[in-house]
Amino acid sequence: MGILVVGSMGLDTVETPHGKVTDALGGAATYFSVSASYFTKVNLVAVVGNDFPKQHIDLLKKHKIDVDGLQQVEGKTFRWSGHYMKDLNEAQTLNTELNVFAGFDPQLPEKYTKAEYVFLANIDPVLQLKALKQVKKPKLIALDTMNFWIQGKLKELKATLRHIDILVINETEAKMLACEKNLMKAAQKIFGLGPKGLVIKRGEYGAMHVTKNSEFALPALPLEKVCDPTGAGDTFAGGFMGFIAKSNKVDDQTLKKAVVYGSVMASYNVEDFSLNKLKALNSGMINDRFNKFKKLTAF
Amino acid sequence: MGILVVGSMGLDTVETPHGKVTDALGGAATYFSVSASYFTKVNLVAVVGNDFPKQHIDLLKKHKIDVDGLQQVEGKTFRWSGHYMKDLNEAQTLNTELNVFAGFDPQLPEKYTKAEYVFLANIDPVLQLKALKQVKKPKLIALDTMNFWIQGKLKELKATLRHIDILVINETEAKMLACEKNLMKAAQKIFGLGPKGLVIKRGEYGAMHVTKNSEFALPALPLEKVCDPTGAGDTFAGGFMGFIAKSNKVDDQTLKKAVVYGSVMASYNVEDFSLNKLKALNSGMINDRFNKFKKLTAF
Repeated sequence: MGILVVGSMGLDTVETPHGKVTDALGGAATYFSVSASYFTKVNLVAVVGNDFPKQHIDLLKKHKIDVDGLQQVEGKTFRWSGHYMKDLNEAQTLNTELNVFAGFDPQLPEKYTKAEYVFLANIDPVLQLKALKQVKKPKLIALDTMNFWIQGKLKELKATLRHIDILVINETEAKMLACEKNLMKAAQKIFGLGPKGLVIKRGEYGAMHVTKNSEFALPALPLEKVCDPTGAGDTFAGGFMGFIAKSNKVDDQTLKKAVVYGSVMASYNVEDFSLNKLKALNSGMINDRFNKFKKLTAF
Repeated sequence: MGILVVGSMGLDTVETPHGKVTDALGGAATYFSVSASYFTKVNLVAVVGNDFPKQHIDLLKKHKIDVDGLQQVEGKTFRWSGHYMKDLNEAQTLNTELNVFAGFDPQLPEKYTKAEYVFLANIDPVLQLKALKQVKKPKLIALDTMNFWIQGKLKELKATLRHIDILVINETEAKMLACEKNLMKAAQKIFGLGPKGLVIKRGEYGAMHVTKNSEFALPALPLEKVCDPTGAGDTFAGGFMGFIAKSNKVDDQTLKKAVVYGSVMASYNVEDFSLNKLKALNSGMINDRFNKFKKLTAF
């Protein structure tokens, strides 16, 4: 068992109506790993520069995340800065510095090649496929992507999608990928590209899991304070994949619950900047919020 | 038991990517009445001109809707024309002719004054209050309103809201009414204005029912074809109030199910223009879709 995640790690400067953080721990693989670590063992492949604070690596280790696949190389760490001053639902990017991430070449330590559950976080689809090919017998492969790759590397993305079980994607990007405004028709078109399942992230409106024969929709937990939405999607994916790997099952009921656990983790993550809340959870808090979702939706 | 609805009736000209209808049956009170008629007896107060086709009144009668409160007066019926060519979620109004609706003075026939369940559809809040004052012992009063009244008659709207149990309102308009971007904080502010409950209509994202101590959220049924969203909110309100009146209970469990039945009715209504689908339902179809909502949301 155990999960393999390949993706970005970085330092984020983020401003929201609730405040600002500078060079705070960020990156898709970071959010994913810490979120998934509450459910199962995580193996991490990413790259950081030699300026990356040791305390952040210590945090990963404290969460029992295997960092043997984390490359620390000469140069500066990937940095992103953005704000959510106009709209908490959409980040406005101010600056992106790829730095060492520009030369990222995902290499799996031998022990990682036995991973059964694989999450390819949002990076170049060519690198996603390169990493995936090193995994010997994956049981379930999920992938995230974004408008940048849909617009700029569609051919490569489609080549990668042919090897994927579940596409985890924003609603707008699902429609963009399928060139189809109706979400259910978009889903059917995406199934034609390879994935058998689709997890649609809808931000403050929740998430859906759709297959050819099933539909599951979960509203988001209504929150009085959304501090910082950065990493919510990756945190969701961490809870989603973490629960599946822990259950070691991929039946319909498990996938539904996985969507709920993903939403639980994301709902906590947005309540503070960076991973400040996410890193301080425990199973009691996670179960408590799982029950809140039950109460919110049962009739 | 039985419901009283006060609101608009009119003839709509609507264009969507799926086609166009001209002078088709429309109006908030119309959608509400026909929707609610599948659950309980409806008493209708509205006004139409002497050009209003008899077949539409026959349709109401066929649904056992009491039309003794429907005033038919000299002049032209209220007309609205709009399109949803850019976005199925938001109507672009092309033209509004108030016609006889400009002089609407809601007068309840004596028998209507005993109504227990009252729905004040989206009209001038002064008229809503005037109608309400004629009801002797209402058990539950719900009200819909819109940005036009929030911006133009806020003082009058607030005076009316003090007499209301449940405000049924769009998400954007709830935030506008409360001057608050966070929906849960907006809800708390609205409770300070009078209503004890809030039904938030979220279009393709579903609906919520919120009180001071409870939250219920239901996603919308994913549909492959949304033909015409006109009247979806009023159709929702009809199912919601219809189920409550039929149950003759206002406990938490009844209100949750009422949200589901409201969503069932709205999901059918958007599948065709005007009331073409809504007028042709039966209890089997309604229960079938109620079960679809169960399947969509249970985990």
